[in-house]
Amino acid sequence: IGAANNLLAALMDNHIHQGNALGIDVRRITWKRGIDMNDRQLRYITNGLGGKANGVPREDGFDIVVASEVMAVLCLSKDIDDLKERLGRMIIAYTRDDQPIRAGDLNAQGAMAALLKDALKPNLVQTLEGTPALIHGGPFANIAHGCNSVTTTKMALKLSDYAVTEAGFGADLGAEKFIDIKCRAAGLKPDAVVIVATVRALKHHGGVAKADLGTADTEALDRGLPNLLRHVENVTKNFGLPAVVAINRFPTDAVEELQLIEDRCRELGVNVALSEVWGKGGEGGEALAKEVVRLCEQPSTMNFVYEDDATIEEKLNAIVTKIYRGSGVTLTPAAKKVAAQLTQLGFDKLPI
Amino acid sequence: IGAANNLLAALMDNHIHQGNALGIDVRRITWKRGIDMNDRQLRYITNGLGGKANGVPREDGFDIVVASEVMAVLCLSKDIDDLKERLGRMIIAYTRDDQPIRAGDLNAQGAMAALLKDALKPNLVQTLEGTPALIHGGPFANIAHGCNSVTTTKMALKLSDYAVTEAGFGADLGAEKFIDIKCRAAGLKPDAVVIVATVRALKHHGGVAKADLGTADTEALDRGLPNLLRHVENVTKNFGLPAVVAINRFPTDAVEELQLIEDRCRELGVNVALSEVWGKGGEGGEALAKEVVRLCEQPSTMNFVYEDDATIEEKLNAIVTKIYRGSGVTLTPAAKKVAAQLTQLGFDKLPI
Amino acid sequence: IGAANNLLAALMDNHIHQGNALGIDVRRITWKRGIDMNDRQLRYITNGLGGKANGVPREDGFDIVVASEVMAVLCLSKDIDDLKERLGRMIIAYTRDDQPIRAGDLNAQGAMAALLKDALKPNLVQTLEGTPALIHGGPFANIAHGCNSVTTTKMALKLSDYAVTEAGFGADLGAEKFIDIKCRAAGLKPDAVVIVATVRALKHHGGVAKADLGTADTEALDRGLPNLLRHVENVTKNFGLPAVVAINRFPTDAVEELQLIEDRCRELGVNVALSEVWGKGGEGGEALAKEVVRLCEQPSTMNFVYEDDATIEEKLNAIVTKIYRGSGVTLTPAAKKVAAQLTQLGFDKLPI
Amino acid sequence: IGAANNLLAALMDNHIHQGNALGIDVRRITWKRGIDMNDRQLRYITNGLGGKANGVPREDGFDIVVASEVMAVLCLSKDIDDLKERLGRMIIAYTRDDQPIRAGDLNAQGAMAALLKDALKPNLVQTLEGTPALIHGGPFANIAHGCNSVTTTKMALKLSDYAVTEAGFGADLGAEKFIDIKCRAAGLKPDAVVIVATVRALKHHGGVAKADLGTADTEALDRGLPNLLRHVENVTKNFGLPAVVAINRFPTDAVEELQLIEDRCRELGVNVALSEVWGKGGEGGEALAKEVVRLCEQPSTMNFVYEDDATIEEKLNAIVTKIYRGSGVTLTPAAKKVAAQLTQLGFDKLPI
Repeated sequence: IGAANNLLAALMDNHIHQGNALGIDVRRITWKRGIDMNDRQLRYITNGLGGKANGVPREDGFDIVVASEVMAVLCLSKDIDDLKERLGRMIIAYTRDDQPIRAGDLNAQGAMAALLKDALKPNLVQTLEGTPALIHGGPFANIAHGCNSVTTTKMALKLSDYAVTEAGFGADLGAEKFIDIKCRAAGLKPDAVVIVATVRALKHHGGVAKADLGTADTEALDRGLPNLLRHVENVTKNFGLPAVVAINRFPTDAVEELQLIEDRCRELGVNVALSEVWGKGGEGGEALAKEVVRLCEQPSTMNFVYEDDATIEEKLNAIVTKIYRGSGVTLTPAAKKVAAQLTQLGFDKLPI
Repeated sequence: IGAANNLLAALMDNHIHQGNALGIDVRRITWKRGIDMNDRQLRYITNGLGGKANGVPREDGFDIVVASEVMAVLCLSKDIDDLKERLGRMIIAYTRDDQPIRAGDLNAQGAMAALLKDALKPNLVQTLEGTPALIHGGPFANIAHGCNSVTTTKMALKLSDYAVTEAGFGADLGAEKFIDIKCRAAGLKPDAVVIVATVRALKHHGGVAKADLGTADTEALDRGLPNLLRHVENVTKNFGLPAVVAINRFPTDAVEELQLIEDRCRELGVNVALSEVWGKGGEGGEALAKEVVRLCEQPSTMNFVYEDDATIEEKLNAIVTKIYRGSGVTLTPAAKKVAAQLTQLGFDKLPI
Repeated sequence: IGAANNLLAALMDNHIHQGNALGIDVRRITWKRGIDMNDRQLRYITNGLGGKANGVPREDGFDIVVASEVMAVLCLSKDIDDLKERLGRMIIAYTRDDQPIRAGDLNAQGAMAALLKDALKPNLVQTLEGTPALIHGGPFANIAHGCNSVTTTKMALKLSDYAVTEAGFGADLGAEKFIDIKCRAAGLKPDAVVIVATVRALKHHGGVAKADLGTADTEALDRGLPNLLRHVENVTKNFGLPAVVAINRFPTDAVEELQLIEDRCRELGVNVALSEVWGKGGEGGEALAKEVVRLCEQPSTMNFVYEDDATIEEKLNAIVTKIYRGSGVTLTPAAKKVAAQLTQLGFDKLPI
Repeated sequence: IGAANNLLAALMDNHIHQGNALGIDVRRITWKRGIDMNDRQLRYITNGLGGKANGVPREDGFDIVVASEVMAVLCLSKDIDDLKERLGRMIIAYTRDDQPIRAGDLNAQGAMAALLKDALKPNLVQTLEGTPALIHGGPFANIAHGCNSVTTTKMALKLSDYAVTEAGFGADLGAEKFIDIKCRAAGLKPDAVVIVATVRALKHHGGVAKADLGTADTEALDRGLPNLLRHVENVTKNFGLPAVVAINRFPTDAVEELQLIEDRCRELGVNVALSEVWGKGGEGGEALAKEVVRLCEQPSTMNFVYEDDATIEEKLNAIVTKIYRGSGVTLTPAAKKVAAQLTQLGFDKLPI
């Protein structure tokens, strides 16, 4: 991924060096090089120095490789042809008169896809008990969509009766991106959702100091519970999917604490299953698995938070009000300008 | 290797950023970052821009990864401890008062060696006929010593009756560095040397145009032969090793041409063996192999071109006069200054 | 001034180049070079490139010369010794551990003062009618104190019975800085203040379009008048000085308009004098001059807006509430941090 | 001159910033900014940083102002129109396809000439005895033609019976440039040449240490004399002009030393005059003045060292062989390439 990312940068700079037929504005290049190290010294650089044989001077910088858009594109691609097409559509710079320059304008997608040919294939590993697991792709959830590759999810669905995948960072950020971006792009629909929680974390949300988390405290748990219940509601009401709450059980969890969580979830029509996989292995997950199987057999209709043809502001508004329960979104003038540019480029129809 | 190279650069820049306790002069840093691409835009850069949170400004540049000194060090190391020690000795910068800063001053060698742990292990592959071959390391012969790793050569010697290794770029550049640098450093001594030649190349040296190389022309061959004979002499007289000339036979080679080469080599006491491996596989190399086996059984004493304790100028002089048959070496004032600095740093005792 | 400004920059960079005994952090240099041209290309640069003989690399930039702090310092200096001392106190950079570096740490003030020796002398010119006028110094009012030099004002006071000086940008910005900064620093006290206004501008404040300013409109004038009256009050009540409003008369000014201004000013105890200098020369200013002479004979006590030993926040608060009639000042966290740094450096005792 | 120089640079960068209609290659800009200070830090910079509102990134640097080509052009110009035309012809950059960009392509010459309007006027000063002297222009002799302005020389010729001008750096460098460049360009012809020498300097050339120069030593003087005689020959034989050698007399000069110089010069047909202006004022120069007047009345024909239509190599060869008595000039491949480019641009017809 680093090589493909940097190949594109080198092709672009070579294009500029060779005469810049596309009229790329060297001050408006958005594509950065990547390096597999958190190297402060490379964040802001000027390159292309050293006279006319060594590129054209410009301001540039390095990102860490996993932050590359190539990672996100790889994970959203169905196959090598789709990958090529998506790579070709990536915007890497602008001309002086605000026209976007895409990787495809440099015919870079072919060479990049060739480098990514093997990276596109999922990796098969196994758990300690021999259960097969596929690992593939790791876009950051804070800057990209944050879930593994479409190819892997589809492969898992083909190869097994039940496929479990992860969408980290909560039901607000992780699940929302999984459903609104990945499921929408790939035509996927989950049959059920497992929401993972711990008694300790909920008590921590309720104000208990880390050192005291081992002591039973249903009052603090009660104060922390709305946090979990909001995630549950997001899944069941907003996305319309059957859900189960899986409690990763710790030895210090008190029975009355577990009971309190169960009661509250049931009020929202959701069961709680204890997961003791950490201590007992696969056997410790049996209760949870059975509940998941049960949920999968129930009919359900997945809802998106917003529709494709909503405006950018409407989409942001939908996420803010439905998922985060904010009162609405207010765009600063600078943000409005960006939104207008994105709309003009036809990007308003994309998920956000 | 790229990661280890760049880790060292990042550690150094971080040291400067954190207060520069070693007093590194940012204008006299000799260690560069590496990238796995021939990227013109990165040859000359300024980095550390963007204010006090983002490093310290300086001029820098990227080399291609294989050109890294780490590659040469890896190939000369006996084992992980030797690797660590050699990495620690590498000079990466100078202070304002001309004191060298080494990787070891930053305690970088441990982390670098950890990254190189797997890279230190030779790769076992096989030929089409199933003969095992070890591939490991590729320092450039023009800027480094140009032969594969010491660990691999020693492993091959352990595992088999006969170990064949390559030292490219002729008996002047390649063999000289193999013997004076690698053999000296690793305590190796070859039993015999195979000098590879083709009739076509020798006629080309004799002035024949590429298109006419298929036509028999003993006169041109005669004019080109001194080239080969000099390499033969370098091996037999300078290094004192038994040698055989292997002719990679082409269908267009005429019998009288092969005879001429054989006659001339015999005058120097060296046999010629035809190699037809390209057309006949292992069988085509039998004659050559038999001659090599014969040579290996002859006693021989390997000579270096210069001794360890000669001065830099004496060493250069020895190479120029004995190997390249020049009349001697003349150092420019700038070169003399560099030689004096190297001597002061104790580097005059190293092979060149 | 440009030469003195750039000399200081060159001395500082030379100090860094020669070993940086003061430990200047090259990323925290606040002193910029100046050029007598609005040159976009020089706003952000990196300099000190080209290896160890050509300075130390750092980020830098050019300001326009009149924006130099040297201009402000020159205008506040009593004489060459005071100039030297003030130049020496200027902060030009910080060390890594936040200690300020001053021009005096480089002993730069002597050489700078030598360059400014002639620039320190006021220029004597004359009006069309032969009245002498002194012109000297031009710090910007938006970034500095905005009035001419202390030496010139004192020279004018010595040489004539009445000295008139200008403090542009209104009675809020200009007069406030003139009194709180220049008069405080130089021990000056004006005997009377002339507030200049035009009927046209006041109608414009009252909402009349530029094209219609020639038509009499007392209603619009009435809406615009609070603007003038606030300036009058600032002078009489805040600063405690006798004032006269001088109307620069235009041919289109209607009698009832002039009357309205006169009435409103009189309610605040201030007379209005018409100035027709533009049309009639010195004679046209006679009425105004007589009123000024009358005011000068009245006793008065000048008040500052804030006292020297107030805190930075108290001083800002005094200006905001007394002069601009705001409800108070709120410092952002970043501004609070800067205020704390300035206080630690002892700058809280300076006028703002 | 600095302002005109920097205005041109700013106009060029603004042109590039506004869209670069001329296609200037930012890596092949030869015009540099100037500053009135020997500021190491500004020799090599990158500017135009800071994003799209602040110019276009490129490598640049500052020269000291007197080194500006504007200085040389000012001194060679006949009048303001000629100045404008010459400014317009200056090459400041090249396009990607090697076409020169001139100041005139940016219509910069008008604004530059306006800034130079006053600088074009000679300055009249006087000696201690009241003799008028004109001072104007100071191009360096090592990088430019090294003599004062054409306008001043012509003005002096108009205003007085005898005009004396200086062409420093010997009869080889100074006089050669004065005659081949300035006289050729301005249509001037000197009537006589004064070659200035001292006994002390000639003895120093003869190997006497500085401390011993006060002791009479005709042998050392004899060894040093060829130095002077070569300058005399250059003037009389190469340039064809009547000459006198003026000895700046020191109290320690011995009579026999002065006699030796006189004898040797007379062998070349040239008189010697003692100049005692330093001690006796104008009276001390009377003998010299009389000899100059005598020489001016003799007819003479000035010769150039080379003709306009010689090639660059022929011109260099003429200077090397006739003036410096070298055996000829050998151009390196790089110099040949530059000569070919200059020839292609039509610059081979210019004096060198």
